[in-house]
Amino acid sequence: MQNNTSDFLSWAKEKQLRIEDVLDEALPPEQQSPQTLHSAMRYSTLGGGKRVRALLSYAAAELCSTDISIADAAACAVELIHAYSLVHDDMPCMDNDDLRRGKPSCHKQYDDATALLAGDALQTLAFDVLSTPELCAQANQQISMLNILAKAAGSTGMAGGQAIDLSSVGKALNQQELEAMHSLKTGALIHAAALLGASSGSLEKIAAVSTYADNIGLAFQVIDDILDIEADTATLGKTAGKDANSNKPTYVTILGLDVAKQLAQQLYETAIDTLAPFGDEALRLRELAGFITQRSF
Amino acid sequence: MQNNTSDFLSWAKEKQLRIEDVLDEALPPEQQSPQTLHSAMRYSTLGGGKRVRALLSYAAAELCSTDISIADAAACAVELIHAYSLVHDDMPCMDNDDLRRGKPSCHKQYDDATALLAGDALQTLAFDVLSTPELCAQANQQISMLNILAKAAGSTGMAGGQAIDLSSVGKALNQQELEAMHSLKTGALIHAAALLGASSGSLEKIAAVSTYADNIGLAFQVIDDILDIEADTATLGKTAGKDANSNKPTYVTILGLDVAKQLAQQLYETAIDTLAPFGDEALRLRELAGFITQRSF
Repeated sequence: MQNNTSDFLSWAKEKQLRIEDVLDEALPPEQQSPQTLHSAMRYSTLGGGKRVRALLSYAAAELCSTDISIADAAACAVELIHAYSLVHDDMPCMDNDDLRRGKPSCHKQYDDATALLAGDALQTLAFDVLSTPELCAQANQQISMLNILAKAAGSTGMAGGQAIDLSSVGKALNQQELEAMHSLKTGALIHAAALLGASSGSLEKIAAVSTYADNIGLAFQVIDDILDIEADTATLGKTAGKDANSNKPTYVTILGLDVAKQLAQQLYETAIDTLAPFGDEALRLRELAGFITQRSF
Repeated sequence: MQNNTSDFLSWAKEKQLRIEDVLDEALPPEQQSPQTLHSAMRYSTLGGGKRVRALLSYAAAELCSTDISIADAAACAVELIHAYSLVHDDMPCMDNDDLRRGKPSCHKQYDDATALLAGDALQTLAFDVLSTPELCAQANQQISMLNILAKAAGSTGMAGGQAIDLSSVGKALNQQELEAMHSLKTGALIHAAALLGASSGSLEKIAAVSTYADNIGLAFQVIDDILDIEADTATLGKTAGKDANSNKPTYVTILGLDVAKQLAQQLYETAIDTLAPFGDEALRLRELAGFITQRSF
């Protein structure tokens, strides 16, 4: 068990370094005009984050024997969409958060206009990376990946979840409504991250990854809400207690801390059960589920 | 000649109605959750605009015998990118414009957060539409179209041009620098609109459309600058004299009105010359060049 954990951490570390290189390569160099825009895009993407979405892409790719260059593009595109969403989410007209990953958020480090454009261009870059000619031997697979990413990021996915989140401040949501919101806001992109990594797999494997990702995506959000209460700002790298303080409904405010923790555990177990038909091929997905639900960072 | 003009106007009107229907179909209905977001996306896209980019896609498609459903998707994706850029461009941290197409701009009609998300989701929808499975018989052609659109919209295309535009306020640009900025800010997407429409054509036709679009794209901007001075706010549907007043460099401030008009004429003629090898197949592109450079709206 100790060995497995250590193996997993080495694997995760290797993949975190790998995606950093892939992102570094995909982002235009800072010296390239327009320099401030490229600087802001790199600042907001590189050198931070747990890269949970990229790890999901890589772990699903291992289950489905997806080519590593396709996994790289999938992980990169998903992390770019995630980075864009954080940049825009932190802006004054949205969450107005000055801190991100322990550093000034993009609009504080640069300015609002630059943050707006940097987020815009990061989103575009995600589709640029995933539409690289001849990425997949089967062009139809690549079209399908692009469509999955677009649906996950758009108005009936991540952006839609943010819109519902905005309109829910100060409202008394019940658990079902909260779940619907988070399944879009956080869940859709986590789901896409795993699905894109799995895109070379059999239908059976893709279906399992899909269910796994739904459960892990929700668990991820429940734990985010728990950490928002339990962790301090320094550990979290963003302003702690912010959601609860700003009168946003969270799993903790609705369910209480203990029930929220039980829910996370239950979602974790469902995710693990889904992987039962697959042996060691699903090892990294299984370990990653543990990593995500037991994180204290 | 009178007949031709009238034919062209009928053709343009038909295509303007057609793209309106295509956009209406592509945008989620207002009743679909999140309703405010979808309402804002529809408000910012439908019922206005000259649809110059869509007309370019359709006219290039006629030259290149591109399937009408591919032309529809191309025109739709490009108009969605254009709509997103206007929504974000009008926001307070950018141009801070209250008026767009004669109506309150998106952030005035809704609020800043909704405008931010609506622009974001309009961009995503463009890639969603263009990644519709089995749009093209040749999936490789579709990948290439997606990549063209991404490169045109991103940090080395339209978004990059906006970043340069922002940083140029109050600076004394020369004509070359101004051209470089506009070739990204406006030119890149106009270029993409024509190229996407032409994507089923021969290499010779695609090359001609590319050169044509470069010249028309630049002419379009020169004329925008002329209209910014000559037209009034009611005719223009947006705040007139704004660029000149806000100390932004324009073709008129750099070249003077007469030379700017000569430049537009010269760009028009180069665009027309490029189409010389093609007969009636290029009729709509030829007429559209005239329409764009002679517009007084």
